[in-house]
Amino acid sequence: MLHTEISWSDTEKKIADKAFKKAYDLETATLISQIRSKASEIVEVDDLWHLHDLLSARRHQLDGKYDHRDSVLIFVFAQLVKEGWLHLDDLKGLQPEKLAKITALTRM
Amino acid sequence: MLHTEISWSDTEKKIADKAFKKAYDLETATLISQIRSKASEIVEVDDLWHLHDLLSARRHQLDGKYDHRDSVLIFVFAQLVKEGWLHLDDLKGLQPEKLAKITALTRM
Repeated sequence: MLHTEISWSDTEKKIADKAFKKAYDLETATLISQIRSKASEIVEVDDLWHLHDLLSARRHQLDGKYDHRDSVLIFVFAQLVKEGWLHLDDLKGLQPEKLAKITALTRM
Repeated sequence: MLHTEISWSDTEKKIADKAFKKAYDLETATLISQIRSKASEIVEVDDLWHLHDLLSARRHQLDGKYDHRDSVLIFVFAQLVKEGWLHLDDLKGLQPEKLAKITALTRM
């Protein structure tokens, strides 16, 4: 599957944008909740640096994962479905070929 | 004042270690309290990245500031006194010349 094969109609772009935002909002809300909980348990300075390391890692990971380029969106969605931040239902309306690719990728 | 002029007796080293630890413990405890408070106010993802930026900056700053080398200890103590993490009383027992230098530096 070459990236250049994939084109997105305007309708698909709207569906993709909405799904992308939904997953991002859900994953970051979950992270916020984790960080608030971890921060409330900080007792010593090592706990503080562990929190900092965790934030550094998660920020880097999120920056890399939420790649909005059309050419990689199929892979991004497959990963988000796999991780539970998105359901295939959220992608309803995309071309059947795209949905089939995403579904196949979630099984890898 | 050349760094090489400064020598520390064993007694002075003990006083310095204790004062150094006291300031570090106080400053990091204050930071822990600030971070816990800020974390409890996180609502959106931008707040999270602000917390991360703050932790990055403060960690870097603390790493640089708490320099335990004998050659720079006079300057470190002056800064800690100036910032309120240490009192001159905590350094009682150091040679009068050192205390005078520290006191003078806190006024700069």
